[in-house]
Amino acid sequence: MLEALRKAVYAANMELPQRGLVTYTWGNVSGIDRQQGLVVIKPSGVSYEELTPDKLVVLDLNGSVVEGDLNPSSDTKTHLELYKAFPALGGVVHTHSPYAVAWAQAGEDIPCYGTTHADYFYGPVPCARGLTKEELDEDYEKNTGKVIVETFRARNIDPVHVPAVICRSHGPFTWGKTAAEAVYHAVVLEEVAKMALLTRQVKGDAEPAPTHVVEKHFMRKHGPNAYYGQK
Amino acid sequence: MLEALRKAVYAANMELPQRGLVTYTWGNVSGIDRQQGLVVIKPSGVSYEELTPDKLVVLDLNGSVVEGDLNPSSDTKTHLELYKAFPALGGVVHTHSPYAVAWAQAGEDIPCYGTTHADYFYGPVPCARGLTKEELDEDYEKNTGKVIVETFRARNIDPVHVPAVICRSHGPFTWGKTAAEAVYHAVVLEEVAKMALLTRQVKGDAEPAPTHVVEKHFMRKHGPNAYYGQK
Amino acid sequence: MLEALRKAVYAANMELPQRGLVTYTWGNVSGIDRQQGLVVIKPSGVSYEELTPDKLVVLDLNGSVVEGDLNPSSDTKTHLELYKAFPALGGVVHTHSPYAVAWAQAGEDIPCYGTTHADYFYGPVPCARGLTKEELDEDYEKNTGKVIVETFRARNIDPVHVPAVICRSHGPFTWGKTAAEAVYHAVVLEEVAKMALLTRQVKGDAEPAPTHVVEKHFMRKHGPNAYYGQK
Amino acid sequence: MLEALRKAVYAANMELPQRGLVTYTWGNVSGIDRQQGLVVIKPSGVSYEELTPDKLVVLDLNGSVVEGDLNPSSDTKTHLELYKAFPALGGVVHTHSPYAVAWAQAGEDIPCYGTTHADYFYGPVPCARGLTKEELDEDYEKNTGKVIVETFRARNIDPVHVPAVICRSHGPFTWGKTAAEAVYHAVVLEEVAKMALLTRQVKGDAEPAPTHVVEKHFMRKHGPNAYYGQK
Repeated sequence: MLEALRKAVYAANMELPQRGLVTYTWGNVSGIDRQQGLVVIKPSGVSYEELTPDKLVVLDLNGSVVEGDLNPSSDTKTHLELYKAFPALGGVVHTHSPYAVAWAQAGEDIPCYGTTHADYFYGPVPCARGLTKEELDEDYEKNTGKVIVETFRARNIDPVHVPAVICRSHGPFTWGKTAAEAVYHAVVLEEVAKMALLTRQVKGDAEPAPTHVVEKHFMRKHGPNAYYGQK
Repeated sequence: MLEALRKAVYAANMELPQRGLVTYTWGNVSGIDRQQGLVVIKPSGVSYEELTPDKLVVLDLNGSVVEGDLNPSSDTKTHLELYKAFPALGGVVHTHSPYAVAWAQAGEDIPCYGTTHADYFYGPVPCARGLTKEELDEDYEKNTGKVIVETFRARNIDPVHVPAVICRSHGPFTWGKTAAEAVYHAVVLEEVAKMALLTRQVKGDAEPAPTHVVEKHFMRKHGPNAYYGQK
Repeated sequence: MLEALRKAVYAANMELPQRGLVTYTWGNVSGIDRQQGLVVIKPSGVSYEELTPDKLVVLDLNGSVVEGDLNPSSDTKTHLELYKAFPALGGVVHTHSPYAVAWAQAGEDIPCYGTTHADYFYGPVPCARGLTKEELDEDYEKNTGKVIVETFRARNIDPVHVPAVICRSHGPFTWGKTAAEAVYHAVVLEEVAKMALLTRQVKGDAEPAPTHVVEKHFMRKHGPNAYYGQK
Repeated sequence: MLEALRKAVYAANMELPQRGLVTYTWGNVSGIDRQQGLVVIKPSGVSYEELTPDKLVVLDLNGSVVEGDLNPSSDTKTHLELYKAFPALGGVVHTHSPYAVAWAQAGEDIPCYGTTHADYFYGPVPCARGLTKEELDEDYEKNTGKVIVETFRARNIDPVHVPAVICRSHGPFTWGKTAAEAVYHAVVLEEVAKMALLTRQVKGDAEPAPTHVVEKHFMRKHGPNAYYGQK
């Protein structure tokens, strides 16, 4: 079932430890088949050494397992909320990469200090608020997704323009058109989070990059007249 | 004698340099056989390149060597105090991993800034006080263990809920149900110590994670209704 | 065409990921044949895994492609401005190496805190100002080059004595007699930028190295009576 | 000539890049044969990839080359001053390892914040003052050695108890009974310098370790009644 997607999601999961983004089992990747409305995701707590494509779990968007013997990632409901709210998403990643976590734990947006950031994220990477005790008790992982969606809607951010969020006291989620692109954005986010912290260490009150620089860099890669790369 | 435990303690010791936690001989792992009351520990000052399972030293809980030609780790008495005071411990690790050492040298508890920490440590990782000159002169390594135990008792911390400590001006000890789990916790502690320092660098007065987040994350992994991982 | 230069520029490009200076495609190297007035440069957005010598693009100094099917690096016009203004340059490198980016994003020159810096850069590495919106709209990459040149002329810096610049909100460019030397300087710049940040972390108001130390170290390597290395 | 020493000094030099202490040619190791009064040292500016035992240079303590076709390290005279002033030294190392350089560039002693430091260095690692212009013009490398010696004498530090120094605006020198031990101390110094900076980042006004802790740790490894390691 969904063999191509299963392979792609497996490869994307395996890239997390290869890129140095996860310690032990601290991360997971999913991908979605929009036509069938089915999501493929890493099983919970399975080490990357033991992971094989057939251990991935297939679910529908209500969270019902349609294939697989293992429990899906404990963060599954967060992934599902993102897929339901943001139709452009083909893949979602969660990690505890340390620099992104540091900004999340500090409760601050990652400022757009320069072009490395602006090449991928059109403005600051937002820090979603923490959950109330009530939200957490009701359904922690589902409401984590809802608070991310609320953050993007309240601030009027297009999730295609800013394919990443950091959740207060927790860590990052990233996404993309595919599971592979979501991992790509997880790598970029960690680099950008590191550069932002180093920038603040050079100068505590460093200014974000000017708007025209952010716009130029994002648009030369992603705008209608983009000229970065090959056709 | 104790072949299975000896192998397990050897493998756990070798994991320390593989995981990047030790420089030269700056670390040691022990494991205990509770039925026989015997502890297997790394010999003192032997490099990891030279270490073999048969070089490990077997002692009883009074510190008398019952097998082995080499001197046991200079930190042996600290391990023994922990085994005697905390019956749930099956393995103990000591390292000088740099981020955990930094918090120990600064003399501060490692705050629980987020879910990565709360997944393993139910609250701050305590910094045990330094020894007085009298305690140090009397029996340095034994009293190091006693001060760790005193710290957990005085603060009413269950060592199963917080399987780590940092000793003032010195460095970390971690433990677990087995030697392997103790090493796992040593890796986690170093990551968490790094994230905590990065968090403070983003925001000097960052707040610890709210109590309900800490409880949720610790309990979804370790509580009676834990749902992380597989059955 | 230009087979030797093509090989050299290919090798220099491949050294960037090998030295840990680039993530994904975040860097490019060019080299120039001064007699023919032709520049060889990396194609835009091509991954280093896919890069081969025949994929490099050959252009004249007006930016007209004379050989190659792929688009040249999006930063090509910046390279060309540097070659046109600074006749001593044989190779140019652009990266987003994180410590150099941090100083660029903070908008500060990298101070010459010591001999590691002075061995290669005869004074601070200048931070070129950001472009105005008008300059950016007119021709972003060309004007980036012009602002670098303006910076060196306004401050009366010989680009042979300081073979590096950081561009505000962006990142570093380095250069040398050859593409290989330009990469060498990119590696040195990142090390020096890291050391400068660590220095400031030890002491926020650290003083630059005294003039006589800077002069001694630069000159013992590069002056008329240089005695470092072999003849 | 001096085949055993030559091999040992070669191996010690090669360990510098293997341990991550040097970039390019930024380091050198020497060893001395006290009976013959001859020093073996790395040639200047030769890359570690090209280095072979027969390229090492043999000099007497006056700096006259007695064997070898290449120029000795530009830092040779500093090594010679240390050998002449400190008879216990069998090997000397110079690197530009980044954390030790940071303290040197900040012009501060590396405080003894804990036991990792005290296990090898009996008190702070001193930062030697910078040279005056006169001293530098007269004989830079020789006077660098003289200022190191002056520092240890003025502060009454035994170079066997503190086998390392950092030179203001420059970087570290370390030493030991052999070239191998000098490299060992170079590795330890870099780790200790890193831990000290991290400690200061946790707490800007962190206190050095108490005297009784420093003495205990140094002496249990190096004192007359040392009990660390094997006999």
